[in-house]
Amino acid sequence: MSRSVKLAVIAGDGIGPEVVAEALKVLEAVTQAEPVDFDLTHFSLGATRFLETGDVLTDEDLAAISAHDAILLGAVGGVPGDPRLKNANIERGLLLKLRFSLDHYVNLRPSVLFPGVPSPLGDPGEVDFVVVREGTEGPYVGNGGAIRQGTPNEVANEVSVNTAFGVERVVRYAFEVARNRPRKRLTLVHKTNVLVFSGSLWQRIVAEVGAEYPDVAVDYLHVDAATIFLVTNPGRFDVIVTDNLFGDILTDLAAAISGGIGLAASGNINPDGRFPSMFEPVHGSAPDIAGRQLADPTAAILSVALLLNHLGLQDAAARVSAAVTADIVARSSTDAARATSAVGDAIVTRLTDTPA
Amino acid sequence: MSRSVKLAVIAGDGIGPEVVAEALKVLEAVTQAEPVDFDLTHFSLGATRFLETGDVLTDEDLAAISAHDAILLGAVGGVPGDPRLKNANIERGLLLKLRFSLDHYVNLRPSVLFPGVPSPLGDPGEVDFVVVREGTEGPYVGNGGAIRQGTPNEVANEVSVNTAFGVERVVRYAFEVARNRPRKRLTLVHKTNVLVFSGSLWQRIVAEVGAEYPDVAVDYLHVDAATIFLVTNPGRFDVIVTDNLFGDILTDLAAAISGGIGLAASGNINPDGRFPSMFEPVHGSAPDIAGRQLADPTAAILSVALLLNHLGLQDAAARVSAAVTADIVARSSTDAARATSAVGDAIVTRLTDTPA
Ligand SMILES: CC(C)[C@H](C(=O)O)[C@@H](O)C(=O)O
Ligand SMILES: CC(C)[C@H](C(=O)O)[C@@H](O)C(=O)O
Repeated sequence: MSRSVKLAVIAGDGIGPEVVAEALKVLEAVTQAEPVDFDLTHFSLGATRFLETGDVLTDEDLAAISAHDAILLGAVGGVPGDPRLKNANIERGLLLKLRFSLDHYVNLRPSVLFPGVPSPLGDPGEVDFVVVREGTEGPYVGNGGAIRQGTPNEVANEVSVNTAFGVERVVRYAFEVARNRPRKRLTLVHKTNVLVFSGSLWQRIVAEVGAEYPDVAVDYLHVDAATIFLVTNPGRFDVIVTDNLFGDILTDLAAAISGGIGLAASGNINPDGRFPSMFEPVHGSAPDIAGRQLADPTAAILSVALLLNHLGLQDAAARVSAAVTADIVARSSTDAARATSAVGDAIVTRLTDTPA
Repeated sequence: MSRSVKLAVIAGDGIGPEVVAEALKVLEAVTQAEPVDFDLTHFSLGATRFLETGDVLTDEDLAAISAHDAILLGAVGGVPGDPRLKNANIERGLLLKLRFSLDHYVNLRPSVLFPGVPSPLGDPGEVDFVVVREGTEGPYVGNGGAIRQGTPNEVANEVSVNTAFGVERVVRYAFEVARNRPRKRLTLVHKTNVLVFSGSLWQRIVAEVGAEYPDVAVDYLHVDAATIFLVTNPGRFDVIVTDNLFGDILTDLAAAISGGIGLAASGNINPDGRFPSMFEPVHGSAPDIAGRQLADPTAAILSVALLLNHLGLQDAAARVSAAVTADIVARSSTDAARATSAVGDAIVTRLTDTPA
């Protein structure tokens, strides 16, 4: 008897639908021989939907999505500067609302420099680390405010909220990730010399939880120093744990040095399993190249690997990763730019050629 | 008649005294023929002083420093993890206290990749931009707090404070800098899609002040995207204006790609002239290599160039820059590591060989 997984698909805006189409192709191919059926529900959400209906994410949308086992998201966001979207903030109203409502407290972002992939760093040696970014606290909580807006006396505040509860659970997750990797090394990144309150909370929790993980080596870097190491010695990193904002910044830089944002996958995970986790490429909707089969679907396909892992389908996940790696290695020896669907097809072919 | 400049010198900790010694050598050499006398007061401040007296920066220290025309600072901070410094936070108590008390609202950090200097990016083309980092607001204000500290119910908040007054003055300064550069281009870096309150304040002010500078081209980048461009296309930047925390992060990354933190100079400037401005290398005190003549004094010497510029001694500043550039180009063709003082001496020789 095969298990059924209810998957909510949010293709989104711009290149979102194109890359999601390839991700679903791969998902179908790799699970053909697995005892699992994916039952897909497509949700039309994002800038396009907002322009049609005026809604970003209704309570009904949220309830319907919550009733699924997992979510695959392409990309959301309209054309930058579109006046009709001026007050919409699709990112906050959709992406962040999903992450917060579904308690995605782990934002998992692996960075691997695949063989043959060009890096702006030339040949930086082996790059294989993962950022565990907190997803439900920090400066992302939206607890700011402003007075005297629009006047010369305006004061605009942002509040970063950090709780022992919230930090502990993501730090523990990061220690688990570190324990299960060969190098077993965890780096806390923060700015403890300036953000002293949140900084000491993070440091205390890492020390406390770390006592339960004597096999994991822990060190600490200020966020500014971490950016230096990311470009001078990325091989020093194994697992990074950090807050929501620092994680946002570090993972874009990490993607840039390991082959670009076109290869970076991510999981917004609710490890408790109370809510569906969401898998998405790190890249945005890139409206400038949308609809022309120019987008690289690799990040979306690698997000499928993260999804499969999360569902306990480790073998299928490994097969997707292997097929993607093989495709990436092959593409570096040819100059021909391929259509979005050609990349998906090539990866599907590799999967079919090497059955489970 | 020669003008007298009262210079407060804070050599500080670790490699601070070594690099400041070279900076002062260069200052003396370059101003020999200028109608200016430097009247130096040495302040013993930093971790060493704290360990001796228990004081970080007293009101008397601050008053005495304020009575000077400018400040040259080496580096402050003790050995990381030194238990005697556990509750001291020299960075906050000294460096940030000076920046805030002396209203250093412009933190000016140029990034230039000098010819022949190795970059982790290989050959990224011309890199020549300057970050205008706000210095007295943002998440650096220390307006955070925590409740139930040390318990599982701790909540630790940090407040980023941004005012129209504070943003306007630094943005205006950045527009002036941009107007006086050949490319006349200003990039605002923020995270407006998440930090909506402070983000809209920054965007509004940039738009308003920008209307007075029609000759300056303005664009905007999210901070995460900015890190990508810094490693994939640093040549796109001319002047960056950003808040205190983003500026901290971006300037370390900027230093890393343009020859390393050993070359990065900075000015903490009070453009109003009500308080002395402070010039310092971006690097820290590096206690691990202190006292062994291993530190590169170039960043401290380039900070002297910024100091001279600030004092209106543009010719002397240009001579220091030229001598440093020549030294940097020469060093790339030799492998010999030089002692800290040898670098200073070499730059002084170049200055003396090419008189004003
Ligand atoms: C779109 C934006 C809100 C989002 C974030 O800041 O988290 C994005 O940059 C990301 O990293 O997923
Ligand atoms: C030492 C620290 C407080 C300081 C800062 O964060 O501003 C440093 O990183 C810098 O950039 O000058």
